[in-house]
Amino acid sequence: MPEFFNVLPPAEALEVLKQHLWVAVEGETVDTAQSLGRILAESVRSPEELPAFPRSAMDGFAVRARDTFGATEGLPAYLKVVGEAPMGEAPRVATFTGEAATVHTGSMLPNGADSVVMVENTQQVDGTTIEVVRPVAPGENVIQPGEDVRAGDPVLEAGHRLRPQDLGGLLALGITTVRVARRPRVAIVSTGDELVTPNETPTPGQVRDVNTYTIAALTAEAGGEPVPVGIVPDDYEAQQEAARTGLERGDILIFSAGSSVSVRDITADVFNSVGQPGVLVHGISLRPGKPSIVALLDGVPAFGLPGNPVSAMTVFDLLVRPTIHLLSGRKEPSAPRSVRARLTRDVASAPGREDYFQVRLTPDGDGLSADPVFGKSNLIYTLVRSHGTVKIPMESAGLYAGQEVSVVVY
Amino acid sequence: MPEFFNVLPPAEALEVLKQHLWVAVEGETVDTAQSLGRILAESVRSPEELPAFPRSAMDGFAVRARDTFGATEGLPAYLKVVGEAPMGEAPRVATFTGEAATVHTGSMLPNGADSVVMVENTQQVDGTTIEVVRPVAPGENVIQPGEDVRAGDPVLEAGHRLRPQDLGGLLALGITTVRVARRPRVAIVSTGDELVTPNETPTPGQVRDVNTYTIAALTAEAGGEPVPVGIVPDDYEAQQEAARTGLERGDILIFSAGSSVSVRDITADVFNSVGQPGVLVHGISLRPGKPSIVALLDGVPAFGLPGNPVSAMTVFDLLVRPTIHLLSGRKEPSAPRSVRARLTRDVASAPGREDYFQVRLTPDGDGLSADPVFGKSNLIYTLVRSHGTVKIPMESAGLYAGQEVSVVVY
Repeated sequence: MPEFFNVLPPAEALEVLKQHLWVAVEGETVDTAQSLGRILAESVRSPEELPAFPRSAMDGFAVRARDTFGATEGLPAYLKVVGEAPMGEAPRVATFTGEAATVHTGSMLPNGADSVVMVENTQQVDGTTIEVVRPVAPGENVIQPGEDVRAGDPVLEAGHRLRPQDLGGLLALGITTVRVARRPRVAIVSTGDELVTPNETPTPGQVRDVNTYTIAALTAEAGGEPVPVGIVPDDYEAQQEAARTGLERGDILIFSAGSSVSVRDITADVFNSVGQPGVLVHGISLRPGKPSIVALLDGVPAFGLPGNPVSAMTVFDLLVRPTIHLLSGRKEPSAPRSVRARLTRDVASAPGREDYFQVRLTPDGDGLSADPVFGKSNLIYTLVRSHGTVKIPMESAGLYAGQEVSVVVY
Repeated sequence: MPEFFNVLPPAEALEVLKQHLWVAVEGETVDTAQSLGRILAESVRSPEELPAFPRSAMDGFAVRARDTFGATEGLPAYLKVVGEAPMGEAPRVATFTGEAATVHTGSMLPNGADSVVMVENTQQVDGTTIEVVRPVAPGENVIQPGEDVRAGDPVLEAGHRLRPQDLGGLLALGITTVRVARRPRVAIVSTGDELVTPNETPTPGQVRDVNTYTIAALTAEAGGEPVPVGIVPDDYEAQQEAARTGLERGDILIFSAGSSVSVRDITADVFNSVGQPGVLVHGISLRPGKPSIVALLDGVPAFGLPGNPVSAMTVFDLLVRPTIHLLSGRKEPSAPRSVRARLTRDVASAPGREDYFQVRLTPDGDGLSADPVFGKSNLIYTLVRSHGTVKIPMESAGLYAGQEVSVVVY
């Protein structure tokens, strides 16, 4: 079913892929302490109450609130200190009317007490008596059982990316292992007769493969597991073989292809020959990155990315990263690291396609200025020398010098 | 030299630490392909030119530009195609006046040619002749040797955090290993008689230690290597022992302490007893997080963080993360992930301290609204249920419902 759609905007290309894709998130069990950045495969409910007992939120005295009602500096309430609630133990003391017990922040409240007077609002009269100079309400300065989480409460939902505090929240409940999505494996094939590995010394006409490594690093950042398949020449059968290997090893297949017309045609033909339905989108209304391919090969999303690094990274951001998130069931993509900056020059764009360009940021008074970096997109150092990307929306004819823009920082 | 400074704003507390600190970044050599997110310990210069040879930036024909001058649709230039420049090899053909050679994007230019005519601007007349219908300038559609990087050019500076494209850029030059800063080791001690590990079942009065894991995850995110030392009771000698262990194992020492006054005093005394100059700052004009300690112990920065999770995370962000960056020689901290959102309620603040509060974000028309989450800071789920943090600056008396604020998303 080759090329039944044609040049589409990035978001629509992704939509076409989603419509054809059956996503079943595969889970695996990991230690909660090692789950940072992983995506929850199952929603988690609390097995217990947190805290499990009434805790003091302050240093001071556990009391019956009623004993303090009306207390002032001039007319304090006098209470007898009958003991202490130590940290980490159920207190051996109970407080009755007219009594108080010393508590620390985090102490379990003694039986009989319903509130805590801050130490600042008391005065020691003698060894066993305190004055309370301000009243407390019942429950004041006390964390009630279940106030943080109640037993049975939903605490985190499937599809949530685990942050440092989430690890803490789960472990606070004794949840020491979690089901998370297996990291989607991204098989990466670099094609091109001119490519050698970075360890080799290129002869004239040859260049080192950089896309395998750039794409692998982008994959790792996006929460995927990169699976480099290797360098393959611009040869139909060799690429077919590499595509089959990639489909075996990956949940997603990426061909980083040359940008020449003949090579692009090989990629599309290879994709169509190794899986169904084959190529879904051939061409994205996007610059850079137009000659990209989106395919579905027997259930595996496959992308033909342009061989030049700037295009490859742009298309990765728009299509591959969201697909990695999709396959790991991720619900909320994180906010991009972005800054506002003032553009230093006009940047033209043709309406009808999305344009992305790289910028360097420099401090400029209180703010930042964004200086477009217009290297050819064949140049990896266009990206190395840049701090981030600016988008020109589909309908816009361009941006103007002095205009404030949002820069997605990488 | 105990407590010769007192309550300071967060930035000044950090400044006091920096003034006392002698930073010597320790380097280690890693494979470039495995260096994502690491901080360069040494600046890198290019050992060679990139590209090493003139490359075609287009599919088309390598020509002498002069042969195309004045060419139009009506009066095309006729050129003889004398061969092809294949990918990955030095072309065996050279072009003389009146001649052209077929090139692909990335081909090495044949001797004699100085520019490339795009295939779109040509027409095949017969097997060996083409019409060129638009002129090219010398150098047009050609990437010159060294155009991406010249030999000897500085390519990346010490202190730079390596991004996916930087790995590609280094590998493109054959730089397969790099010197990066060793990840600063952060020794984490959780103190409190009430604490048990998450694997244990707490008895009444006990709670599970969550700060070790939350701080370990924050450390990993910040580029440090967490070294959990364990749980230590609120006992002077036990804590002294733990501090010494932490100083042996860590480049930074964190005590996650209880918040009660007595416990805070132990931490300061312990710090002063194990290294010089000892406590530098005791108390930060910050909410939450006021009862924090900044110390320098025989060259090792040490922090006493409040035991409650919200304060601990706030102080980590403001003091510990920048210290990890400092010890790894990191130059440019990355832009925070932040979004603009409209506040749903007034939030008061006392002038003279920085206030931070947690918010939940919800879609609201075209934008987002930020709903303050005012759990007690003892509650880990205050953080779990939040999407980010809003700062109220030192001089401000508060923020207003409906005001647009910047939310740092975590």
